[in-house]
Amino acid sequence: MNTPVILERARSLVEPAMEAAVDGLCGELRGPSRYHLGWAGVDGSPSAAGAGKGLRPALAVLSAEAAGAPAAVAVPGAVAVELVHNFSLVHDDMIDGDTERRHRATVWAAFGTDDAIITGDALHNLAFQVLLVDLTPERVAATARLARATSAMLAGQAADMAFGDTLDVGLDDCLAMEADKTGALLGCAASIGAVLAGADPAVVEALDSYGRELGLAFQAVDDVLGIWGDPVVTGKAAGNDLRERKKSMPVAIVLTGEPGAAAELAAVYRQHGDLSDDDVARATRIIEAAGGRERTLDEAGGRLGAALAAIDGVGLVPSACDELRGLARFVVDRRF
Amino acid sequence: MNTPVILERARSLVEPAMEAAVDGLCGELRGPSRYHLGWAGVDGSPSAAGAGKGLRPALAVLSAEAAGAPAAVAVPGAVAVELVHNFSLVHDDMIDGDTERRHRATVWAAFGTDDAIITGDALHNLAFQVLLVDLTPERVAATARLARATSAMLAGQAADMAFGDTLDVGLDDCLAMEADKTGALLGCAASIGAVLAGADPAVVEALDSYGRELGLAFQAVDDVLGIWGDPVVTGKAAGNDLRERKKSMPVAIVLTGEPGAAAELAAVYRQHGDLSDDDVARATRIIEAAGGRERTLDEAGGRLGAALAAIDGVGLVPSACDELRGLARFVVDRRF
Repeated sequence: MNTPVILERARSLVEPAMEAAVDGLCGELRGPSRYHLGWAGVDGSPSAAGAGKGLRPALAVLSAEAAGAPAAVAVPGAVAVELVHNFSLVHDDMIDGDTERRHRATVWAAFGTDDAIITGDALHNLAFQVLLVDLTPERVAATARLARATSAMLAGQAADMAFGDTLDVGLDDCLAMEADKTGALLGCAASIGAVLAGADPAVVEALDSYGRELGLAFQAVDDVLGIWGDPVVTGKAAGNDLRERKKSMPVAIVLTGEPGAAAELAAVYRQHGDLSDDDVARATRIIEAAGGRERTLDEAGGRLGAALAAIDGVGLVPSACDELRGLARFVVDRRF
Repeated sequence: MNTPVILERARSLVEPAMEAAVDGLCGELRGPSRYHLGWAGVDGSPSAAGAGKGLRPALAVLSAEAAGAPAAVAVPGAVAVELVHNFSLVHDDMIDGDTERRHRATVWAAFGTDDAIITGDALHNLAFQVLLVDLTPERVAATARLARATSAMLAGQAADMAFGDTLDVGLDDCLAMEADKTGALLGCAASIGAVLAGADPAVVEALDSYGRELGLAFQAVDDVLGIWGDPVVTGKAAGNDLRERKKSMPVAIVLTGEPGAAAELAAVYRQHGDLSDDDVARATRIIEAAGGRERTLDEAGGRLGAALAAIDGVGLVPSACDELRGLARFVVDRRF
């Protein structure tokens, strides 16, 4: 499947504004921020490291266009959402102890935890500043929406952390947690362009629903890739999620499913010390055999359907609506 | 000197709103937040641990009253500023490695660093949410002001961290750093009530200046107490700032002053490993003898004068203005 052109189109529109915003930070905060965003090395030298997929800016741009506004209307919203997303990555990498992201050292691994804390804080705050440059009703509404979505995202992250203490996590628990952790901000991304365009509330809410459902589909695919993905393509170590004993959707499905497989998988997760490659391979086989992979992909498919249904019949601009559909299908079919 | 009644008056007005806001957080975030704010123990049981001085809520309330509005108008601003202040304390305690605050374990020491990161993030975000409950022009203006002040606060914290790498820090460097780290948010506290009251820009800016100058006076006093304060009264270990090799104002004055004393103090700071009680006592004597204490107190006095001058002749309500003056003098004369 080809990469939708909207990803590159949104990037070329949003990245200059994002760079201008980040360059307004003081020097101590600018360096780690530019590094995290793939624009600079640890020493500040220019870099063209792979940034993220740019899904959120693409959603923001399409949501403005779907509401009949030019793409440029979405830019402050796209920048703000992307800043919040990246602040959460910088902090979550510390919380998860992840030392690599996109084949590079994470901010805390490269700059230390102190810089990672304050850099994340600065990106978080900058998101609000970017929107509040002008105090138009549309920007103010977008700011309030972003604050709510960020609040949900943090609650989801806290719920995810709480999963660490128990094996009693089912698919519904995962979905509720991910609806907050991933869905809320994707819903915000997919509606903030329309909010900035002053669109009708029904249009805004339809786009928000699309984004939330897409967020769950995205996460389901991510959870499958976290176990069965190709490390060369995903940029993460093979079986990483199992090695970290994550309660991702495939794991949760098996842990709370057929008792035999549940006990087998729980026994692996309950082992003391680091899991070996053999442990990870064994857990992978248990989950696969118990249908954890298949049911997670079914969930992704169901959520994709719900996302597509949400934007049907609400009078969106057809071309933008087509691109939203294509983007959703791409997210679910991706291999990275 | 008696504690100004405004501190208790503001607390009784602001704390219920603050508690209501924090109680809206999800359970995982509520616990560490309530603990940090002194309302609960680690296990969630009720507590009446000493909260902070409540300087910022007091300033916010007086700034509304100084602009002729009832105190209640200031409450969302007071809560928001206090939330930002407390988010920064939770994260700064991690960055500084401080294990105690107000005679209790800091959040990271009690709950772990992961919870401290996300709790700080949640308090930061909640500050914006509290203001954006209603999208009135006054609240929106207050939100934009808070975002700017928080940005400056973070830049100041980053600058403070950068001081760790060098002994070439003078009083002016300290003042510039503290103007951001402490002054900006106190300026915001001292003006946000007036902003919410829809006051004239000249009134808002006068109050902001008062708060900024007061912030520098406050910090100068804090820096003196960090070396010469009574641990029983301050709740911090004696000589803590020197043990941590902080470049506080008294230290910076000596490090960049008369070469003999500068070299002596630098020699202590350059020692490898932890500083002993004798090292700290020796550094204290060097700084005292070289006038670091006296000149820092002079700076506090000068900034107090500037704060008092800022609110003169701008037509503030006299009774509130008197309380602002009393509060400023109290801050500079305090022993804690």
